[in-house]
Amino acid sequence: MQDPTTPGTLLTAMRANPPLVQCITNFVAMNIAANVMLAAGASPAMVHAEEEAGEFAAISGALTINIGTLSSGWLAGMTSAAQAANKAGKPWVLDPVAHYATSFRRKAVAGLLDLHPTVIRGNASEIIALAGGTSRGQGVDSRDPVELAEEAAVLLAQKHHTVVAVTGATDFVTDGNKASRIEGGSPLMPQVTALGCSLTCLVGAFAATRPDQPFAATVAALAVFAVAGEQAGREADGPGSFSWRFLDTLAGLDEKAIDSEARIISL
Amino acid sequence: MQDPTTPGTLLTAMRANPPLVQCITNFVAMNIAANVMLAAGASPAMVHAEEEAGEFAAISGALTINIGTLSSGWLAGMTSAAQAANKAGKPWVLDPVAHYATSFRRKAVAGLLDLHPTVIRGNASEIIALAGGTSRGQGVDSRDPVELAEEAAVLLAQKHHTVVAVTGATDFVTDGNKASRIEGGSPLMPQVTALGCSLTCLVGAFAATRPDQPFAATVAALAVFAVAGEQAGREADGPGSFSWRFLDTLAGLDEKAIDSEARIISL
Amino acid sequence: MQDPTTPGTLLTAMRANPPLVQCITNFVAMNIAANVMLAAGASPAMVHAEEEAGEFAAISGALTINIGTLSSGWLAGMTSAAQAANKAGKPWVLDPVAHYATSFRRKAVAGLLDLHPTVIRGNASEIIALAGGTSRGQGVDSRDPVELAEEAAVLLAQKHHTVVAVTGATDFVTDGNKASRIEGGSPLMPQVTALGCSLTCLVGAFAATRPDQPFAATVAALAVFAVAGEQAGREADGPGSFSWRFLDTLAGLDEKAIDSEARIISL
Repeated sequence: MQDPTTPGTLLTAMRANPPLVQCITNFVAMNIAANVMLAAGASPAMVHAEEEAGEFAAISGALTINIGTLSSGWLAGMTSAAQAANKAGKPWVLDPVAHYATSFRRKAVAGLLDLHPTVIRGNASEIIALAGGTSRGQGVDSRDPVELAEEAAVLLAQKHHTVVAVTGATDFVTDGNKASRIEGGSPLMPQVTALGCSLTCLVGAFAATRPDQPFAATVAALAVFAVAGEQAGREADGPGSFSWRFLDTLAGLDEKAIDSEARIISL
Repeated sequence: MQDPTTPGTLLTAMRANPPLVQCITNFVAMNIAANVMLAAGASPAMVHAEEEAGEFAAISGALTINIGTLSSGWLAGMTSAAQAANKAGKPWVLDPVAHYATSFRRKAVAGLLDLHPTVIRGNASEIIALAGGTSRGQGVDSRDPVELAEEAAVLLAQKHHTVVAVTGATDFVTDGNKASRIEGGSPLMPQVTALGCSLTCLVGAFAATRPDQPFAATVAALAVFAVAGEQAGREADGPGSFSWRFLDTLAGLDEKAIDSEARIISL
Repeated sequence: MQDPTTPGTLLTAMRANPPLVQCITNFVAMNIAANVMLAAGASPAMVHAEEEAGEFAAISGALTINIGTLSSGWLAGMTSAAQAANKAGKPWVLDPVAHYATSFRRKAVAGLLDLHPTVIRGNASEIIALAGGTSRGQGVDSRDPVELAEEAAVLLAQKHHTVVAVTGATDFVTDGNKASRIEGGSPLMPQVTALGCSLTCLVGAFAATRPDQPFAATVAALAVFAVAGEQAGREADGPGSFSWRFLDTLAGLDEKAIDSEARIISL
């Protein structure tokens, strides 16, 4: 019997009933994140203002929060949306971009962590710092390999009862008990801005599809990204052609392609 | 004698004197909308702040307002700009993105409607809801076919003395008396985020070129979009390659190509 | 002995130690500017909020400020960041987009000029108006040739003890004493939105690499852009394909290609 939560079956399920995902993301990521979501088959809505973020979270299938271009006004909207998602029982995903860089970000992320994200997705430097370690991150860029962040990810997942995804050359996902590595992608991906932010939104789409299975949903989003990235990377001549090939590939992938090409190592 | 307001002749007139169009649009659309405007031959300026939006509207040829990523601060700038456009006798275009989704949006759009937009452009769900009907829209995505919104569009145009454009697989434009359908485009267009928002800006460019003919100007913008979309769609392999092919095609189209390929049905 | 500040050697030096550059830029430019920076080999961070802009400027190698989509809140962040950059001895670059268009912009730019930018980059209309002349700029678009702005650039550089770069068909850079013209680029570049804004960020990256040589750093950034633009323009079919080819080309250029193809005329 086929596992009903393989990445491919989850992609099919997601497309069969495109989830409305409220994406509160940064100004750099807005356009590419929405395009990634549409290519994958989800229904993104970028709604951030405090005046409506909570009301919108209640009608969405999931919420994603990325602090890339944070300000106080936006933080109020994020907080309101996360509270409403919790109240409505909707999953939400936290992307703590460069949270170690300033005191404003550190406080903001501490407050958001208290609102119980369902999933945290970050690069290695972000996850290490979030677990209390010393990262070598510079600005928004990770300078640590994913392997170094695996222990921090497990501790963080256990402490906050959440799924933690560390993305990089090889991704790592854990819920504090089980863990998986996802291989694939392309060396061109870090040269394209906001792909990680876009992946955060896609985790939200899969979490909306299977709110009962946040670990499998997160693995699925990362596996879909890794397969699409690997295929697009084979054809691309640089970061510019990678971007549009990635969207074309993502839109063209189906369940069979994902489940035959995804390289997931259960630990 | 050739009709002086065919889409092709209006495109030529627009390029001969590129209109400055103030586009108050959402964070997702900013970049692609500006690129669409430049490819078509217009001169877009994204100026939204209350501190200057009104002053800038007075020197622009037209104004477009899109509420996609609305907040109170931006609403103040939109209001100020629409009032200034009215005072200066400049046309302005309203794009009521997902106005049915939250009470904040509903109130904002009610206030903007009171400022007499020259043209309203939306998808079918938005136009149905704006006319008081029950739409099936989810977030920012329409779930209703354009055909179902035609009656609502006519009622809305009559009530507000405005041109109403409903865009989708086949577009519909009416001023409350006459109406046209525009065929063309590509099934890939809904997979590319913010193309509708970009089209709203382009309606502004044509309205600036012929402020005395808002119906013909709106039809022209939609026809140019439909021809470019159809041609780009023939070559594209997915939503990523569609985007840049659409811009290349739009920049390369001329009067003759538009007027020979546009499929406009006067009703 | 090879000049250690040729554009090619500066590019190699920049990539060997990718500088963290805080880019406060407009909503249109955010994504393409970050992608240009990554393709060139720099490490951009879009951090604008008053709550953290100053703290972040102190840890960055350089700061760039672009007023394209200005508002009061952002102006406060810009001011705070420029003050912190000055205090920390970091170079900063001003891009006075359409500063002549409204009184809000004029006042904002006057205040920013008082904070001693290391480099000012603008189009001809912006530089002419900044030096007190009458420009023909419309919205964000220059309507004046670069040649007409050269005298204004020299005066501006002398008055503010800064480097001034006027970009257009042929660029002009001066520190008030010496000056250079940089040829290259492509007629498609003005059809792609926010490439000038992206170039401002790239000037910041080179200035971070050689803060002791702001003139040579500015010339290097413009030369790299001109070479990449010229190569990409040869292959492109329009503004859409130009964009991604420009990023591919920029990522693929090396020291040798830059120094053999750059056309810099020392005046």
